[in-house]
Amino acid sequence: MAIKLHNTLTGSLEAFEPLKSGKVGMFVCGPTVYDFSHLGHAKTYIQFDFLARYLGYMGYEVTYVQNITDIDDKIIERAREKNVEPNMLAEEYERYYLEDMAALNNISVDKYARAHDYIPQIVDQVKRLLAKDMAYRISDGYYFDIKQFEDYGRLSGRLSLEPGDAVSRIDENQEKRNPGDFCLWKFRKEDDPYWSTELGEGRPGWHIEDTAITESELGPQYDIHGGSMDLIFPHHEAEIAQMESASGLKPMVKYWLHTGFLNVKTEKMSKSLGNFITIRAVTEKGVSPLALRYLFLLSHYRTPTNFSFEALEAAENAYNRLKKFVAGLLGTGVVDESYKQKFTEKLENDLNTPQALAVVWGLIKDKDISPEDKLATILDFDKVLGLGLEYKK
Amino acid sequence: MAIKLHNTLTGSLEAFEPLKSGKVGMFVCGPTVYDFSHLGHAKTYIQFDFLARYLGYMGYEVTYVQNITDIDDKIIERAREKNVEPNMLAEEYERYYLEDMAALNNISVDKYARAHDYIPQIVDQVKRLLAKDMAYRISDGYYFDIKQFEDYGRLSGRLSLEPGDAVSRIDENQEKRNPGDFCLWKFRKEDDPYWSTELGEGRPGWHIEDTAITESELGPQYDIHGGSMDLIFPHHEAEIAQMESASGLKPMVKYWLHTGFLNVKTEKMSKSLGNFITIRAVTEKGVSPLALRYLFLLSHYRTPTNFSFEALEAAENAYNRLKKFVAGLLGTGVVDESYKQKFTEKLENDLNTPQALAVVWGLIKDKDISPEDKLATILDFDKVLGLGLEYKK
Repeated sequence: MAIKLHNTLTGSLEAFEPLKSGKVGMFVCGPTVYDFSHLGHAKTYIQFDFLARYLGYMGYEVTYVQNITDIDDKIIERAREKNVEPNMLAEEYERYYLEDMAALNNISVDKYARAHDYIPQIVDQVKRLLAKDMAYRISDGYYFDIKQFEDYGRLSGRLSLEPGDAVSRIDENQEKRNPGDFCLWKFRKEDDPYWSTELGEGRPGWHIEDTAITESELGPQYDIHGGSMDLIFPHHEAEIAQMESASGLKPMVKYWLHTGFLNVKTEKMSKSLGNFITIRAVTEKGVSPLALRYLFLLSHYRTPTNFSFEALEAAENAYNRLKKFVAGLLGTGVVDESYKQKFTEKLENDLNTPQALAVVWGLIKDKDISPEDKLATILDFDKVLGLGLEYKK
Repeated sequence: MAIKLHNTLTGSLEAFEPLKSGKVGMFVCGPTVYDFSHLGHAKTYIQFDFLARYLGYMGYEVTYVQNITDIDDKIIERAREKNVEPNMLAEEYERYYLEDMAALNNISVDKYARAHDYIPQIVDQVKRLLAKDMAYRISDGYYFDIKQFEDYGRLSGRLSLEPGDAVSRIDENQEKRNPGDFCLWKFRKEDDPYWSTELGEGRPGWHIEDTAITESELGPQYDIHGGSMDLIFPHHEAEIAQMESASGLKPMVKYWLHTGFLNVKTEKMSKSLGNFITIRAVTEKGVSPLALRYLFLLSHYRTPTNFSFEALEAAENAYNRLKKFVAGLLGTGVVDESYKQKFTEKLENDLNTPQALAVVWGLIKDKDISPEDKLATILDFDKVLGLGLEYKK
């Protein structure tokens, strides 16, 4: 049986066949680093980490890239409120983000790509769009002309923002050719950070960061693009328009995967609605971050999930039962007290480590001790030896 | 049988009885962070990490403190050569030091105390010594008067530097009352870093950092002080003189433990002799840092050890045999292919994680699968689940 994945682009379940046999290029929209990550982020990134692990488990060589949006209106605003430099604020919250991901055991990302490291590639993409007349200049920056891209709307079925959509991050400029046109490069505003480039002093629009990163890291066409469902429009639609226009190659992405929302009382958990719970708020209560992981794996990734502390507690109980079961199996051996006595006697005598190690080898050769008991005894000794003899993936 | 440790203070093997029942306060001289750590450091810190683990293993609650010397002539000189700020240089090499310690599995230190965080405590100690006439002021700083401390020489049996001793870090000032008097507070020199304090602008002497830290973190009297043998004189002698004079309590430390040198062709491996090999130079050749740990545990901590790559290779072979033996024991179970097929089938269908978790619970309840095979199968699934079910200390 082949792997089947639901592709947002076609609306159907499709057999997974990567562009290059045995290899998978995968990109997932990363965070804008201006605040702590919440449980909605935890859900999305656990589910995509799972996908990357799963593809690796099935024998694919996966290259998983995530962007870090470290230039953005929200970062600049928050930095101004806190009276710090935007790049320092971004570095701080990036660190928290990476700590949170590590705690959730999200370890599959091969490259975290910071937007500010891709300014030349961003400028290059905008120049290519200008050369093809897909982009134009107005008073506050360069914009993409969605009417010039015939496939605009293919992913989402929409051409413009609708009530209830995620709010566009770009202030509307009346000079735009079409209401849905989006900014590629924002000209410098007085106190904002900027780069001096061939496009003038300014900073990139949000959508172009991702295509500059994916083109550099995965090429103009790759296998999987993931993100939360609210990014389909306008963000992912804009990515397709930019990249396919600049490269002339379609499709930019073969499989688009989107995760369902995490809801609190039927409302999406989000920064803008103010109903969010940070990952740290939960783990600081003593809940294991891996119980959160268990909770989110209990839902199918596309299914909207209702968060409640009752559900989390139930997941934590199940997770603890599972751990206990495994620990019980690992613990079938018993520490051999006679060897433990020999071992500690050697150490009691002014820490005679060479003789204590000789006891370990004596135990290994002893035919009267069962393998399970040898294992339990050696792992017990390793608490002191620190030789990292325990099971590792 | 009680734990027995060789105490440098008495020159004999003594039964270990901490000051407070069940609790151990332990301090080991940490690094001056101006360069990479070498194998001599690896030996010392592995052997003391082992001691801390061992005491914990025997049921003691250990508080293990190490200082980080981040203010020092060597740091200032090196920073000047490299044209960087001394504190930036120190932070950089502290990071490398902590990375090296983590790689060696030296995880027992509860608190790394940076000298620059203890300036008020240092000033306070010097003021107490001045009030008792144990210290005096000359042109370049405040000094300790060793003639005022009747026990001076008790630990080392010496009163001054001898040929072949570690070189004193303090430039001799002819105004000193006795040749062995050591500096407590150095007055500011033009371009050097300094703190403005009640003692005037300046920076602490080397010895006083440690007693300020230990008094703050462990109290004026504590159980174990460790370090390499070359620190006995003058460093540890000076620590005793300072702390016992300031507090009026004896002994500052109940058990003094010193590790034997790591030699290269009978010469001590040291920065000053230039015959050192960094930890990184060895691990970058592909040698596991834990093979180094094994090598140093093969020697008793007080025995001088000759380093050679032949000995390291032999240790690495033995370590690898040991790991292989343990992995073999852990691997007695076999992944159940029928459950693996069920598990992967669920995931092949657009990543059905809830059903895949149900397969795990089905396996757990299945009476026809042996515990060993259940374990092997679940640990295999956990490569994807990422629930951290493997054995952890």
